[in-house]
Amino acid sequence: MSSTFGTLFKVTTFGESHCTALGGVVDGCPPGLLLSEADIQTQLDRRRPGQSALATQRAEEDRVELLSGLEQGITLGTPIGFIIRNRDQRPGDYAAMRTVPRPSHADYTYAQKYGLAAASGGGRASARETAARVCAGAIAEKMLRERAGIDIVAWVSSAGDSECAEINPETISRPQVDMHPCRCPHAESARAIEALIAQAQSEQDSLGGTVTCVCRNVPIGLGEPVFDKLEALLAQAMLSIPAAKGFEIGSGFAGARMRGSEHNDLFVKKGDRLGTSTNYSGGVQGGISNGEPVIFRVAFKPVATIGRGQATADFDGNPVTLAAKGRHDPCVLPRAVPIVESMAALVLADCFLRQLPRR
Amino acid sequence: MSSTFGTLFKVTTFGESHCTALGGVVDGCPPGLLLSEADIQTQLDRRRPGQSALATQRAEEDRVELLSGLEQGITLGTPIGFIIRNRDQRPGDYAAMRTVPRPSHADYTYAQKYGLAAASGGGRASARETAARVCAGAIAEKMLRERAGIDIVAWVSSAGDSECAEINPETISRPQVDMHPCRCPHAESARAIEALIAQAQSEQDSLGGTVTCVCRNVPIGLGEPVFDKLEALLAQAMLSIPAAKGFEIGSGFAGARMRGSEHNDLFVKKGDRLGTSTNYSGGVQGGISNGEPVIFRVAFKPVATIGRGQATADFDGNPVTLAAKGRHDPCVLPRAVPIVESMAALVLADCFLRQLPRR
Amino acid sequence: MSSTFGTLFKVTTFGESHCTALGGVVDGCPPGLLLSEADIQTQLDRRRPGQSALATQRAEEDRVELLSGLEQGITLGTPIGFIIRNRDQRPGDYAAMRTVPRPSHADYTYAQKYGLAAASGGGRASARETAARVCAGAIAEKMLRERAGIDIVAWVSSAGDSECAEINPETISRPQVDMHPCRCPHAESARAIEALIAQAQSEQDSLGGTVTCVCRNVPIGLGEPVFDKLEALLAQAMLSIPAAKGFEIGSGFAGARMRGSEHNDLFVKKGDRLGTSTNYSGGVQGGISNGEPVIFRVAFKPVATIGRGQATADFDGNPVTLAAKGRHDPCVLPRAVPIVESMAALVLADCFLRQLPRR
Amino acid sequence: MSSTFGTLFKVTTFGESHCTALGGVVDGCPPGLLLSEADIQTQLDRRRPGQSALATQRAEEDRVELLSGLEQGITLGTPIGFIIRNRDQRPGDYAAMRTVPRPSHADYTYAQKYGLAAASGGGRASARETAARVCAGAIAEKMLRERAGIDIVAWVSSAGDSECAEINPETISRPQVDMHPCRCPHAESARAIEALIAQAQSEQDSLGGTVTCVCRNVPIGLGEPVFDKLEALLAQAMLSIPAAKGFEIGSGFAGARMRGSEHNDLFVKKGDRLGTSTNYSGGVQGGISNGEPVIFRVAFKPVATIGRGQATADFDGNPVTLAAKGRHDPCVLPRAVPIVESMAALVLADCFLRQLPRR
Repeated sequence: MSSTFGTLFKVTTFGESHCTALGGVVDGCPPGLLLSEADIQTQLDRRRPGQSALATQRAEEDRVELLSGLEQGITLGTPIGFIIRNRDQRPGDYAAMRTVPRPSHADYTYAQKYGLAAASGGGRASARETAARVCAGAIAEKMLRERAGIDIVAWVSSAGDSECAEINPETISRPQVDMHPCRCPHAESARAIEALIAQAQSEQDSLGGTVTCVCRNVPIGLGEPVFDKLEALLAQAMLSIPAAKGFEIGSGFAGARMRGSEHNDLFVKKGDRLGTSTNYSGGVQGGISNGEPVIFRVAFKPVATIGRGQATADFDGNPVTLAAKGRHDPCVLPRAVPIVESMAALVLADCFLRQLPRR
Repeated sequence: MSSTFGTLFKVTTFGESHCTALGGVVDGCPPGLLLSEADIQTQLDRRRPGQSALATQRAEEDRVELLSGLEQGITLGTPIGFIIRNRDQRPGDYAAMRTVPRPSHADYTYAQKYGLAAASGGGRASARETAARVCAGAIAEKMLRERAGIDIVAWVSSAGDSECAEINPETISRPQVDMHPCRCPHAESARAIEALIAQAQSEQDSLGGTVTCVCRNVPIGLGEPVFDKLEALLAQAMLSIPAAKGFEIGSGFAGARMRGSEHNDLFVKKGDRLGTSTNYSGGVQGGISNGEPVIFRVAFKPVATIGRGQATADFDGNPVTLAAKGRHDPCVLPRAVPIVESMAALVLADCFLRQLPRR
Repeated sequence: MSSTFGTLFKVTTFGESHCTALGGVVDGCPPGLLLSEADIQTQLDRRRPGQSALATQRAEEDRVELLSGLEQGITLGTPIGFIIRNRDQRPGDYAAMRTVPRPSHADYTYAQKYGLAAASGGGRASARETAARVCAGAIAEKMLRERAGIDIVAWVSSAGDSECAEINPETISRPQVDMHPCRCPHAESARAIEALIAQAQSEQDSLGGTVTCVCRNVPIGLGEPVFDKLEALLAQAMLSIPAAKGFEIGSGFAGARMRGSEHNDLFVKKGDRLGTSTNYSGGVQGGISNGEPVIFRVAFKPVATIGRGQATADFDGNPVTLAAKGRHDPCVLPRAVPIVESMAALVLADCFLRQLPRR
Repeated sequence: MSSTFGTLFKVTTFGESHCTALGGVVDGCPPGLLLSEADIQTQLDRRRPGQSALATQRAEEDRVELLSGLEQGITLGTPIGFIIRNRDQRPGDYAAMRTVPRPSHADYTYAQKYGLAAASGGGRASARETAARVCAGAIAEKMLRERAGIDIVAWVSSAGDSECAEINPETISRPQVDMHPCRCPHAESARAIEALIAQAQSEQDSLGGTVTCVCRNVPIGLGEPVFDKLEALLAQAMLSIPAAKGFEIGSGFAGARMRGSEHNDLFVKKGDRLGTSTNYSGGVQGGISNGEPVIFRVAFKPVATIGRGQATADFDGNPVTLAAKGRHDPCVLPRAVPIVESMAALVLADCFLRQLPRR
């Protein structure tokens, strides 16, 4: 188990799908920061299932409760404990899955790793676990915004084979992203993506896609050389999200097809710092932020739980046909948006605190 | 600075381009393992520049020297210290770069982060640093091979817009990879890639590309839920390699365009375990290895140092044209192959030791 | 802030005196362990104030609530979250202390470190915080008992200048310790100590003392050479307890006055292992457990909060006389007993998991 | 194995008695610090055996070689690698010990932990390993002195039953400590201690003793609440030194016999800060430095290797008489002085960097 993330801004989470409560601890948040449950609830609500016709109808009303680390709405510098009670548990829907490991789920690997076949299956592999990350991420964001003016916006940049039209990373905002249920901020692209999701749903199938994220006003100097390069920590953070299969920063895989003369970001004077005329680097050079927007993209596989029958095997290896009951998100991407933002915030908060003012 | 990697199999490295020696410490290697400098030297030689006409001609004869942790060729369980003396230092070639930060290099970000403009520039961002990782990785590989039968093979799967033909991940071997200087194991593809590299070189330009890596015989159960998922640690490890811009596991970004019904890896009986009939998951489910080959791909940007003149700015923001002197690799991909293997080995070695036999 | 302890058996705590709840997360507890709230409550009750006339009368009825990591009373291998709601908060009693830092308390250092003068003062320095450690320790103990037969018993070995008569570390048990309110297991010594405590209380003063702890059936091989020697981790763990001023293992400070010929623990055959005829080493050699009982002692200073007036200074440096209102423990030692046991259990649990069976 | 210490100022060491070289890596040292091998050699020479008639005559001329992290004598902020070649290896002297585990040594526990009976025995438990710590500590001290004016002085405060007369912790200096070979800075006490050591040596026996250490000008606010209290980290650091059996800060074990009214350090104005009129706390309150001198004491057991015959058992449990050949320190205390200072410096350097200026 590894439920702790970060060196100085350190987050520990707990909770699986069917337990009493999930929650976490943020240790290392600086003192003197204004913080309320409302700051967190906003992002938590964006992660919640059941926000629209596009999403699963489980009516989990996730309410965060802050337990410590605050006095009169101001952080003390002590650890901030928080919980979210689990309300809507319908374990019955999952009962049939117990003898059959769900394909491309964690049921089989968890059972092998832990030697237990628990009702909660790969409990910590469930997307439910990410609610605690979103709480912690919202706290990190609050600090980053207040102390450094950093802001972070993610959006759905593709679903299936439908790509979002180009979005301006300098200006895109969360209200723009939230204008469409699919969280693709380009109206026409959003319509195409929503049609695609509806179609997948009607076919009891699911879709994958990508989320793009930009972090603006990141101070120069964040990220630690060698193993904790900013892009390395972001890559770990993103691939730790359930269903993530890929990460790229700046030019990413497209950059691998370019020439150096084309790809190099040439320096130009920007106010009192050096900036670059292009941003193929994605805001990092040598693992350290360079003052340009940090921009990256995460690939998510299609949701593994589908209503269609699948010819698979039970735990004993016997052939069996499995079809998920209940309602399921045909596409997790809209809900992945705040999770991506939260994990980015956790990485930046830690790098921000690790980057010491020179003493 | 973060020069330590791993929780139980822990590697710490040191050294920049122009120092006396670089090296590292492997702490946590189990006792009783046969280990010699030759085990390491093989991989180190594969990383060395100057192996062929394709690579830079700096004749660094990297010789690893093991300093501790062994007695009569057997590991003691104590930390293994090692160094590689720097021999071929031609700092003169770099002199012109001191007042001008090289585009898409770490000169500017290091100077900003550390408040120093050192001759060695972004010293720890240099590819030179990876020699220590290759030593540590070779030790990790030795353990993985002896204790678990794991083997790891990487190859160049594309350069510029030239893609390698399909390679069988079940059978590909290092000798096959090394048959062609460009380390693309498919003869025809290799010829195309080598032509592309030669062309870039003649145009004083550079190329990016991708490296694919497979880890075979990985026991079921490696990787830790939530933040240290196997793919998350691999992503961090790969994005920590200089010039890496992207990572994908299994289906990766292509998987984001697929449907669930197509992408789900259905279970089938394979001997005494459950296997999957496809491997879009890339050998991991819920962050834990599932017994299938772990397969992933890394994108590298084109080499930033090119002979062509570039219109950039000096540290003070004044426009200047910069053209690198000396000889430079037009394509780092062949040398990246053992680095990718080494970082994969470090991740697996740590996960292997963290996966406790149930007590 | 550093609220996380351990490498593999990892505990994170949160909560200060006057917050909503305190609690923690145990990450790394192996799966398949029987665990209930009752297992924890027993130790928590031993830590609780108000157990006897000797202790403060704050009626905190600490009830632990387990939130995750269990299914049908069996651990899943996932993190175990737990909370204890704060019930009896009488912040009024502390109000006068806000402008005057309490002598030998953390009010001044916290205010300086965090730049805040919070009502909860040195909130995380309060003994209240240790309730979460006791919960985590009880989980660790359960694992140690079930998986390795380890048992841990601590007792009050002195208070003020009153020393407990010799106790046999091989046989002493918790019921014996709990027979006397002062948790000194020797009847006559207990009476002397209780008289001393009563006297200190009547004089509005307080007492220090020592707690001795023995860990039996510790397997040979626990502890990691160099920085994480078993005694080094125990020393850290014990000095992290509020009011602890000293730690000694085996012969300790008395051993510093001995000759080698007298102090060396000579080997003798004990069943299928080597044992030692004396145990001046306290069960460790070279930082590693040797199969003999691990025995150590912790010194606690007298409680800093006393009813007597003290001539001190307020935050601005003005002379002031401070006398604590309310009732206060004249001696924390009886309540320190389960805390010492808990911290010992956390250290041993972590070392137990770190000591890999040779693969 | 745990050969890494620290969170931000991070030290990793390697090397056992009979290997090629020992050494280490300091990661996290800030850039811009003047540093030379001479800065380190001074402390290394103080640790060296063979400095006087009191010490063993092995003529190890430990020479530190700095390998990286510096340019023109200034730290770069990159990791500082260093090695010390082993010169004087007389493994022959130790040959007889291979079948007989030395009493109160690590031979038996290492053999059990690692499953190997190596010639170097409990290699990492050897005092030889501390040479690397002294190098790292000297680097830490340089930083602490330059950046915060902290200075650290340790001395021998007792040997056997001979106690050093009272020393003024505000003024004691290293030259005063080094005036006597036994590193007890009080002339009369020094003579008594040296007589005691000579007597033990003549009787082929050994002595234990204590080292006291003071750290002056420690800024207010160092140390992290809960598990990484300043005194907890110091306790870990000190108990990680070979042969250490006890640690106490401020009043320590004597404080456990005091009343609160006597022990409380009352506040008084000292310039622009609050100070205390006494320092029973030893410079820490609630785990955080309070601006007063940090003062602590470490107990060392008598050297385990003695020339006298001892009736013990071999690895198989057969009775045998063991008498160490060769020359051995009858008392390690004078050499422990720079080791204690070094470990204190490592703790303070890490706490200093962790104590963020409020951003």
